[in-house]
Amino acid sequence: MANIIITISREYGSGGREIGKKLAERLGIDFYDKEIITMLAKESGLSEETIHNWAEKEVSGFFYGINAARGIIPIPDRIFSARRKVLNELADKGSCVIVGSCGDYILKDRENLKKFFIYAPKELRAKRAKEVYGDDLAAYPNMIKRKDEERRDYYNHFTSYRFGDYKNYDACINSAIGIDKVVDLIEYYVKQD
Amino acid sequence: MANIIITISREYGSGGREIGKKLAERLGIDFYDKEIITMLAKESGLSEETIHNWAEKEVSGFFYGINAARGIIPIPDRIFSARRKVLNELADKGSCVIVGSCGDYILKDRENLKKFFIYAPKELRAKRAKEVYGDDLAAYPNMIKRKDEERRDYYNHFTSYRFGDYKNYDACINSAIGIDKVVDLIEYYVKQD
Repeated sequence: MANIIITISREYGSGGREIGKKLAERLGIDFYDKEIITMLAKESGLSEETIHNWAEKEVSGFFYGINAARGIIPIPDRIFSARRKVLNELADKGSCVIVGSCGDYILKDRENLKKFFIYAPKELRAKRAKEVYGDDLAAYPNMIKRKDEERRDYYNHFTSYRFGDYKNYDACINSAIGIDKVVDLIEYYVKQD
Repeated sequence: MANIIITISREYGSGGREIGKKLAERLGIDFYDKEIITMLAKESGLSEETIHNWAEKEVSGFFYGINAARGIIPIPDRIFSARRKVLNELADKGSCVIVGSCGDYILKDRENLKKFFIYAPKELRAKRAKEVYGDDLAAYPNMIKRKDEERRDYYNHFTSYRFGDYKNYDACINSAIGIDKVVDLIEYYVKQD
């Protein structure tokens, strides 16, 4: 298989991270997810905790305006600049799978790029959030909705795309079929190409 | 393979019809596309020409209101009622591939349903429209846009879904990879399931 960059964009709780990890193992290529946080911290000069807390938050409205007027670059903008640099460095290193991080947008001009979007019905995502991440939605019934909005707003703010617009992907796959089957399918896709 | 109903929804010029036809051949199951027009004519009492002309047109606004007020069921509504009946009859007969016709929505409650959405970049769709359908876009530069709007408006009017919303599909596939490869991929998907 020739050099390939695979980006996995995903709805919260759809299993995109696990799919990306298993896919990278199958293909024997690098997988980047949480490592990116460490690299972003190094690149931006911010702490890993700050990166984590601000990872999917955009600053808008009043305080954004105040900061801009005072010549202060807002933290999310600093993180996004670092994201551009880090993701391009990773893609230059060789074949890999990158989950999230607006990778589909940042790396969009690379010829060897394949972009997938993973989604799932809300009830399955809530179940997964509880089982895998330990996020108990009984206490936060609107969490999926809030996470969806946060992810969408961040993506729409920093890219010229719309979150979840099929046009930006090679394929969008509903993970209700099962995590391993989605991995099979993407593996089949990239090997067939 | 157990009994299966496959619906192919698609953007104009994306090759969805050819994909559906080839897929049905591969799987050895029935394929319905233009036959549906004949069946709709029989069911609705309208001519095939009328069905063809109104196939993706919704009536809205002033004349819709006038007709409704006079107790006249608008032609698109008569066609959609016939569509419900015809598609359910076809699905009852056994495994098949149905292209378009809001099949994904009309048959949404069937357990053995797999729903795919096919799309492609505009420039590829324009190329295909010219080569395969003989629609020369040089004379009608906005045709793709108009066809997209017509298909979207029809679908959004008659269903409770939004056209092209990934949430309504098992997978959405960009046919830029090649028609035969999309067929391979869907065949792999349904056999794996």
